[in-house]
Amino acid sequence: MDRTQSAKHRVVIIGGGFGGLQAAQSLKRADVEVTLVDRSNHHLFQPLLYQVATGGLSPANIAAPLRSILERHANTRVLQAEVVGFDLESRTVKLNEGELAYDSLIVAAGSSHSYFGHPEWSSLAPGLKSIENATDMRARILSAFERAERTDDPEERHRLLTFVIVGGGPTGVELAGALSELSRHTLRHEFRSIKSEEATIMLVDAGPRVLGMYSEHLSDEATKSLEKLGVTLCSGKIVTEIAPSHVVLTKDDQHETVGTETVLWAAGVAASPLAKMLADASGQEVDRQGRIAVNEKLDITGHDNVFVIGDMARCLDADGQPLPGLAPVAIQQGKYAAKLIARRSSGKSLKKGFVYRDWGSMATVGRSMAIVQMGKLEFAGYFAWLVWLFVHLMQLVTFENRLLVLFQWAWNYITRNRSARLITNTPVAITTKS
Amino acid sequence: MDRTQSAKHRVVIIGGGFGGLQAAQSLKRADVEVTLVDRSNHHLFQPLLYQVATGGLSPANIAAPLRSILERHANTRVLQAEVVGFDLESRTVKLNEGELAYDSLIVAAGSSHSYFGHPEWSSLAPGLKSIENATDMRARILSAFERAERTDDPEERHRLLTFVIVGGGPTGVELAGALSELSRHTLRHEFRSIKSEEATIMLVDAGPRVLGMYSEHLSDEATKSLEKLGVTLCSGKIVTEIAPSHVVLTKDDQHETVGTETVLWAAGVAASPLAKMLADASGQEVDRQGRIAVNEKLDITGHDNVFVIGDMARCLDADGQPLPGLAPVAIQQGKYAAKLIARRSSGKSLKKGFVYRDWGSMATVGRSMAIVQMGKLEFAGYFAWLVWLFVHLMQLVTFENRLLVLFQWAWNYITRNRSARLITNTPVAITTKS
Repeated sequence: MDRTQSAKHRVVIIGGGFGGLQAAQSLKRADVEVTLVDRSNHHLFQPLLYQVATGGLSPANIAAPLRSILERHANTRVLQAEVVGFDLESRTVKLNEGELAYDSLIVAAGSSHSYFGHPEWSSLAPGLKSIENATDMRARILSAFERAERTDDPEERHRLLTFVIVGGGPTGVELAGALSELSRHTLRHEFRSIKSEEATIMLVDAGPRVLGMYSEHLSDEATKSLEKLGVTLCSGKIVTEIAPSHVVLTKDDQHETVGTETVLWAAGVAASPLAKMLADASGQEVDRQGRIAVNEKLDITGHDNVFVIGDMARCLDADGQPLPGLAPVAIQQGKYAAKLIARRSSGKSLKKGFVYRDWGSMATVGRSMAIVQMGKLEFAGYFAWLVWLFVHLMQLVTFENRLLVLFQWAWNYITRNRSARLITNTPVAITTKS
Repeated sequence: MDRTQSAKHRVVIIGGGFGGLQAAQSLKRADVEVTLVDRSNHHLFQPLLYQVATGGLSPANIAAPLRSILERHANTRVLQAEVVGFDLESRTVKLNEGELAYDSLIVAAGSSHSYFGHPEWSSLAPGLKSIENATDMRARILSAFERAERTDDPEERHRLLTFVIVGGGPTGVELAGALSELSRHTLRHEFRSIKSEEATIMLVDAGPRVLGMYSEHLSDEATKSLEKLGVTLCSGKIVTEIAPSHVVLTKDDQHETVGTETVLWAAGVAASPLAKMLADASGQEVDRQGRIAVNEKLDITGHDNVFVIGDMARCLDADGQPLPGLAPVAIQQGKYAAKLIARRSSGKSLKKGFVYRDWGSMATVGRSMAIVQMGKLEFAGYFAWLVWLFVHLMQLVTFENRLLVLFQWAWNYITRNRSARLITNTPVAITTKS
């Protein structure tokens, strides 16, 4: 694990997501030695995970080996390892095997799900952060239809054909749209005992409307589209119980029990536990979402060579509001941290602090419909959907994956098929009767 | 699970592999009621699994949902379920949930690995029968390179870069060729501490030469190609021990210990345990490979409405030799059994027994080289490889998958990349130091 002593400035980057990968890429020509550490061997384009979960794309279509992406970076080394601690005084990162010394450290380990104080829900309501999450979700969704086909009990069948998505943000809305497409079109003629198109898809959100971060107009457009797709919207309700065969939704002390065996989690996120470790190591606190505060240069107080970027960082904008956990934030932060380190390592400095440039955001609602918000400009519909397609396609890291995804999207659009509908790595619990 | 009584002849097919799927497809226009039962939800094109295991293709590229394939068969129902027993007297198949009554039964549950009396080897030396097998093998192969990159111990590194493939049949040879391509080309510039191209790939076979079922000339051609690819051939040796960090190869009482942490199993196969169940239920014995004997009409003695086809059946050819466990055998048997059942159900009969028509066989050895044997005609080299490509492409069930595979093959051929190199669903044991 140790490398021979070198005079070069050593940069360790933790995490190969949007922020960490961008930082490594931005350091390509810098006179530094970069080590990128990630638990997994691939960069994952998380915004399209819901398409893997609903059988539209294969995992490898939206992922690329980190080694392969950084192959031509002569100054960069990739290590698949798990970070277990920090020693900020001796400037080392502790790995599950060995340790790494750094001169500058960029921590970009992202976030995982938060079950709002109910960690026991995680096995009942999988989220969507990794490939394993997506193939697990895919198996649960498809197995629910399989089990509904097998059973003779009308109540069980109804429960199996009820899907509850928790969280009305972009992921929840995109999942609901894709599930509607799957049940109403793709699977329509494949079963003999059930009508897949009669499946109930519920989208539960605590807020008054879905996609609450968008303008009211766009949110209304999305609502209308979801209703057309047959999605049952449950706004203003919170989930107060999740059990193997039902969930309880609560609004103003009114409890409603919904029979379901498939609950999909698209709600809370919590920063990687590495944020807490860093906070402990530097005598700070994390916020409610587990994020550590960073200064305007993205470093943490007391350690100007330790940068935290992306979902783990609590980084305030000009209005004093924390920046959202979005890919563009992480990417811009990765660029900034890399630039700062490159400057410093060549004896220069960077006076300007980090400023997030918001280029807008977008979400898709089923086939042929998306909403786009770019500052004051906002639009919804078919053209927005084409913009969504183009932007997402171009963000995939490899050219091969762009072509593979484009081909499959075109094919699925024409045939309404979703061919990656495999049930694999299935825990016994979801294939046998409960 | 029960269906309403119907006057129609009820055919139950167990297994959606080559034989079972073909039988269902051949019954499309027959006046019968078909139920196809499979443990998994997809038909899998096993001959290309080695490409999934080496990151060349994604699982969904070589698999298709059984429901989707049989969607337009109005007389056919697909059930994802596990068969747990037979009652041949009452003509029922027992499932993990419920049971199925049949008038005719086709059992086509295939085969799994045989570890020659060492079942404990299965966790150390995964085989290649299912998608889970292939993604497990992929994770082990890629993790070995990752761990070699991490370690400072030269002995451990050498062990991690030694891959032992057991079995010199088509699967073993194809795996060896693909592993050579992976280590010598795809991964070549991706590591910093190791040279991936220096990996040792050993192909162990008990027989005197690889691909022993082919002519000596073709076997020699394959041997030469494997040597050019840097594969170390260990013919005439048997594996007598497999441990987490070594294997023992034995020849004439000479034992040789080879340090390795990645052993890939491409040797013995054993018929599905359903063959034994059927044999017990009908008062018969299975042969050494666990197969049940079938008569010339592919039925089992004493039960002319119970057919066994594919890898599970011991079916003798004109010379009294059992037919090999190959896809074409299963497919032709599936067609025959379907035809016989269709005839009988309409009051006719089929006098002719099953005769296997051998159209030849082929195997590929790395890129641009294959061997083809068709009766007396045999050829090896680039043209044979093109034939191999074409035949395998056309055998994929869906048109979409043909295009996806063709595109990825072309891309991989030009770039030598293998983009589906994901380490997923990794057991802890293979990512942490032993």
